[in-house]
Amino acid sequence: MSNTIGTLFRLTTFGESHGAAIGGVIDGMPAGVKVDMEFIQSELNRRRPGQSKLTTQRNEADKIEILSGVFEGVTTGTPIGFIVKNENQRPMDYTEMSDKLRPSHADFTYQCKYGVRDYRGGGRSSARITISRVVAGAFAKLALKEVGVEIQAFTSQIGNIKLTGDYKDYNLKNSENNAVRCPDDKTAEEMERLIAQMKEEGDSVGGVVSAVVRGCPAGLGEPEFGKIHAALAAAMMSINAAKGFEYGDGFDAAWRKGSEVNDSFYSDNGTIRTRSNHSGGIQGGITNGDDIYFKVAFKPVATIMKEQETVDSKGNSTTIKAKGRHDPCVVPRAVPIVESMAAMVIFDLLMINKSRK
Amino acid sequence: MSNTIGTLFRLTTFGESHGAAIGGVIDGMPAGVKVDMEFIQSELNRRRPGQSKLTTQRNEADKIEILSGVFEGVTTGTPIGFIVKNENQRPMDYTEMSDKLRPSHADFTYQCKYGVRDYRGGGRSSARITISRVVAGAFAKLALKEVGVEIQAFTSQIGNIKLTGDYKDYNLKNSENNAVRCPDDKTAEEMERLIAQMKEEGDSVGGVVSAVVRGCPAGLGEPEFGKIHAALAAAMMSINAAKGFEYGDGFDAAWRKGSEVNDSFYSDNGTIRTRSNHSGGIQGGITNGDDIYFKVAFKPVATIMKEQETVDSKGNSTTIKAKGRHDPCVVPRAVPIVESMAAMVIFDLLMINKSRK
Amino acid sequence: MSNTIGTLFRLTTFGESHGAAIGGVIDGMPAGVKVDMEFIQSELNRRRPGQSKLTTQRNEADKIEILSGVFEGVTTGTPIGFIVKNENQRPMDYTEMSDKLRPSHADFTYQCKYGVRDYRGGGRSSARITISRVVAGAFAKLALKEVGVEIQAFTSQIGNIKLTGDYKDYNLKNSENNAVRCPDDKTAEEMERLIAQMKEEGDSVGGVVSAVVRGCPAGLGEPEFGKIHAALAAAMMSINAAKGFEYGDGFDAAWRKGSEVNDSFYSDNGTIRTRSNHSGGIQGGITNGDDIYFKVAFKPVATIMKEQETVDSKGNSTTIKAKGRHDPCVVPRAVPIVESMAAMVIFDLLMINKSRK
Amino acid sequence: MSNTIGTLFRLTTFGESHGAAIGGVIDGMPAGVKVDMEFIQSELNRRRPGQSKLTTQRNEADKIEILSGVFEGVTTGTPIGFIVKNENQRPMDYTEMSDKLRPSHADFTYQCKYGVRDYRGGGRSSARITISRVVAGAFAKLALKEVGVEIQAFTSQIGNIKLTGDYKDYNLKNSENNAVRCPDDKTAEEMERLIAQMKEEGDSVGGVVSAVVRGCPAGLGEPEFGKIHAALAAAMMSINAAKGFEYGDGFDAAWRKGSEVNDSFYSDNGTIRTRSNHSGGIQGGITNGDDIYFKVAFKPVATIMKEQETVDSKGNSTTIKAKGRHDPCVVPRAVPIVESMAAMVIFDLLMINKSRK
Repeated sequence: MSNTIGTLFRLTTFGESHGAAIGGVIDGMPAGVKVDMEFIQSELNRRRPGQSKLTTQRNEADKIEILSGVFEGVTTGTPIGFIVKNENQRPMDYTEMSDKLRPSHADFTYQCKYGVRDYRGGGRSSARITISRVVAGAFAKLALKEVGVEIQAFTSQIGNIKLTGDYKDYNLKNSENNAVRCPDDKTAEEMERLIAQMKEEGDSVGGVVSAVVRGCPAGLGEPEFGKIHAALAAAMMSINAAKGFEYGDGFDAAWRKGSEVNDSFYSDNGTIRTRSNHSGGIQGGITNGDDIYFKVAFKPVATIMKEQETVDSKGNSTTIKAKGRHDPCVVPRAVPIVESMAAMVIFDLLMINKSRK
Repeated sequence: MSNTIGTLFRLTTFGESHGAAIGGVIDGMPAGVKVDMEFIQSELNRRRPGQSKLTTQRNEADKIEILSGVFEGVTTGTPIGFIVKNENQRPMDYTEMSDKLRPSHADFTYQCKYGVRDYRGGGRSSARITISRVVAGAFAKLALKEVGVEIQAFTSQIGNIKLTGDYKDYNLKNSENNAVRCPDDKTAEEMERLIAQMKEEGDSVGGVVSAVVRGCPAGLGEPEFGKIHAALAAAMMSINAAKGFEYGDGFDAAWRKGSEVNDSFYSDNGTIRTRSNHSGGIQGGITNGDDIYFKVAFKPVATIMKEQETVDSKGNSTTIKAKGRHDPCVVPRAVPIVESMAAMVIFDLLMINKSRK
Repeated sequence: MSNTIGTLFRLTTFGESHGAAIGGVIDGMPAGVKVDMEFIQSELNRRRPGQSKLTTQRNEADKIEILSGVFEGVTTGTPIGFIVKNENQRPMDYTEMSDKLRPSHADFTYQCKYGVRDYRGGGRSSARITISRVVAGAFAKLALKEVGVEIQAFTSQIGNIKLTGDYKDYNLKNSENNAVRCPDDKTAEEMERLIAQMKEEGDSVGGVVSAVVRGCPAGLGEPEFGKIHAALAAAMMSINAAKGFEYGDGFDAAWRKGSEVNDSFYSDNGTIRTRSNHSGGIQGGITNGDDIYFKVAFKPVATIMKEQETVDSKGNSTTIKAKGRHDPCVVPRAVPIVESMAAMVIFDLLMINKSRK
Repeated sequence: MSNTIGTLFRLTTFGESHGAAIGGVIDGMPAGVKVDMEFIQSELNRRRPGQSKLTTQRNEADKIEILSGVFEGVTTGTPIGFIVKNENQRPMDYTEMSDKLRPSHADFTYQCKYGVRDYRGGGRSSARITISRVVAGAFAKLALKEVGVEIQAFTSQIGNIKLTGDYKDYNLKNSENNAVRCPDDKTAEEMERLIAQMKEEGDSVGGVVSAVVRGCPAGLGEPEFGKIHAALAAAMMSINAAKGFEYGDGFDAAWRKGSEVNDSFYSDNGTIRTRSNHSGGIQGGITNGDDIYFKVAFKPVATIMKEQETVDSKGNSTTIKAKGRHDPCVVPRAVPIVESMAAMVIFDLLMINKSRK
């Protein structure tokens, strides 16, 4: 709960947007796994701002420092402490924030909850804190790779631009070849245009990240409260700006008849398979070995360059208009975060399963 | 995890559809709360099958027995153990199940996970086990009532019949006056007709449950992994047949611009309020005091009276066609379960908040 | 915490001394383990009052009822709900308790904590609630047997009668052949005499339970807060009337020099062994494969048949003198409870270890 | 479990003796508490080596760096990440360790558990990692101070030199005035002499730390597995080199009769009090408002300057003799660690209690 996620593979995080450092502790990583530092840094780079002209210009190295749990290039089984320093703190940008409540940000609710708040760049509520998730996700991916589980997320919608096909219709690896992380180049271009337009207007736009997990063994998931899709939902909804989660047919299932969406079984030369995968690879909260696929909806970034009505901390009417560096759309940068959260959830459940063998 | 939910207000459940009893343990219920047994039983009755001609005819009393934690009519602060006996076991209906895998049920995945399974009526994967959630939810509601928090869920969609208005357009209390638990009588009638038609066809249909929480104080929710909507998502997605969760604008937020959905602040005679509530009463994972609203999508019941292709446990091709008592649509009965899960999540977060005062 | 113990093998308990039933939920028991009901009942019988003339005469069958998680004689991997009904409730014996605070019982502290209390027989603070521990311990023992781990506890001290030798000097199996569960017959006789004398005097006496775990694989225990001896300490100290815990040399280590107690390594034909076992089979919180041994001190039962000064709930001076059925010494009946707690702790850690393979 | 302790006030730690840094994350610290950095550093200084000629000469500043959760001098309610850098790493001292197993250290068990180990200075099993406990304990003390709870530990035994009186016979504050942290100056001198002698002999010696908690409100502690003394036992036994724990009469209770040790109640002008405190301020696992007192036994440091028989990692016979900087007795430095663990446990239980008001 709070700042820890996981049962056996556990991440505990700390850090504020403009504090000394963002960081975390990974507890439960098995010993003896080769640590590919280049891969971990490359995952952080996927999340990093300033990757393209579409994202915020806060250009920090986001360099990972491992403080413990890795010795002579392999994990030791002890907790992996890590930090990423906040280099580019620029506190001057945020003086206005110390007094005005930013609409649809967490300023007001943090103030209500804690009575005090670190107003610099949103403090703990900043999306910058997802850095720790990407680090832990990278470790989970390293462990999952050894057992053949692959996770691929991609942008399937930005505003009113939406991928029309199924995930099987695209080469998902192509997502990393464009700035919006959409597997279809033509759609990607339209998305980029929309984001550029939002930037020009000083506005922002929401979107959807889709994800597919391939090679996941059957049997993962803990009924009844630890169903794999419940764990995925909690993990995804904990990402900044997430508004919805669905897996398999998702909300579309509500429109359908059982006879249309049941996945009938057949024998594929002795192996039991299903004719369709409306279930999204999960039945009764447990994986069946088929592809797991799900979607996460993100709202538009709350920070916009337009004047908005608001109040100051004393409740006096005023207006606010953001200055400085801000993303018109965070969805492309959410892609590695969605993957990271999925990796942590799945590896945790895999470990739980092994504990009973 | 697994069969326990909550941090301070915790429910641990047990039981199979056709075992001796369904039950659970509520740990963390504050002492000194008057236990209204009639209310608790009435909540169970809302979930019970056989309430109308639309639901399964398994007609059991589902009578609650409290075994501990309540003394002289009030809670004692010690764990509340409870059971509901499975009276109407009819094991004969389920012999076919012992060998054939029911499409889109959890037979196959339980077999993969555990190597053995209680095949009678789905065993642990049966929706009958939600009984324990309703009991614990009723206790949470009793505690929440004392602080003015009210939770109301209702059916907003059955198949292609959908409530078109906002939750504020309806008298939600009216939901309990019809068999489908829809606040709008006209829509309710259409929904009933659709379910009746499905029953006649031997088919099933999905739907959506919407919920509103009123009177929730500002400040609830634990960043960063314990955001209130992440906890709600996990709780809701753990309900049998749930396929999607969204709060506030939900998936619609993906289509929008920031300037359209930001909830601007204004001063209402000194009280800080928002002009709109696209956020669904939650910002940064913490409540702001406004109404919390969310939706849960449910797939159509997997059990249908039509012949379906499947395999037996040895992988041989065969067909299956359900007999006996089954709901063509579980959505109306999911309404009290959604409320119960919400009550548990909110009361747990309320207790966590009080611990820091 | 509270009424749940364990990470992967978890027991949650409920019940009061004179409520409807004592019970619990075991979550995490692996599937496919043959359930030897006779063994489980025999473990309960070892804990049961009325086994000999030395113990309380509350003579109940303490018959276990499994409500879930076991199907066709084997575990299914789903939670095992169980109850033991309180048959012999005799509420009349306890009317005095409703008003007077019993010295060194938990009447006063429960009243302080909860504001209300079930005063019948101590309610939740009664040693009767250890029934649930013995049931879960029996399941853990069944699982541990399959991997060759054996746990044996015995009475090593009653009042001033103390076993002088090391555990290796005795045939520990012999403990079950006398009423006090001491492996040495002569010492057992002296202990029995002392307890009989206490009974005659209307007084009570304390003692020590020692335990040995053989066959435990090396590598169990989770640094840094989950050290195996820390987990054992918590488990043992949670038993009613426990006052102290030590393992290996224990408090005697405080008197010693490093050169006297270090366990030096040698090569036994290629296998690394230690010359001595002052460490009690544990170094740095992790097992080394050698015997684990530890001791648990129990205070004398607080209930005595002598008149004692006390106050009533309003704070008025009065006296109290117990009537009815009470043990002059609970130590022999604590033996199976100590074993049960050890079994749960060790099996839990074994499962955690397997999760990383 | 593992590297996290606590339910609402939680500490997660990381770090190895000779890695980049030792650190941790405190989650659950209430917002708005003034952070007295001088006090926190002074607590670390009490634990620090090199305080006197009796302790190891590893002379590091052990300077605390707070990375998050504190803003403008007060806690913000968000997780407090902190590190203490390992300045004085001197890896050359430890080359022998990479191959030889040190008797009664955790080299062998870490190797068994993880297959790899950071052999520099004991890695994760080094007592240096207790730094993180002292930091978190200091925060807990700051919070406890506001409610009047005071915790004082002291050295009550070093080898065969033992305080003979009760804790009430001494001015415990005096403990900080001598190098061994014993409240009685004369006994302190004898202890110092014994440690000096051990140093000369190249040997080490064990001891006992006693602790008293004053001002703890009645009602803390969570039956049935979260009894306060069970939580204290787990916390204390998790400290490096701890071998035993007892509270109240402890192991002495085993020798006694109920009539001798029951704490009878009387009315002190309307306030209910007990005539004695054999219970150590705890009954049924819940505090009664009286002083809590307990003892923790520590074995002699395993590192000695004498030649000892051992094996290398291949199992070949060899000998080992420590060189470099080592404490002949860690007991005085364990005093602040015992206090820190007690502070964390008590504050956590206090928060849990408040959650139910």
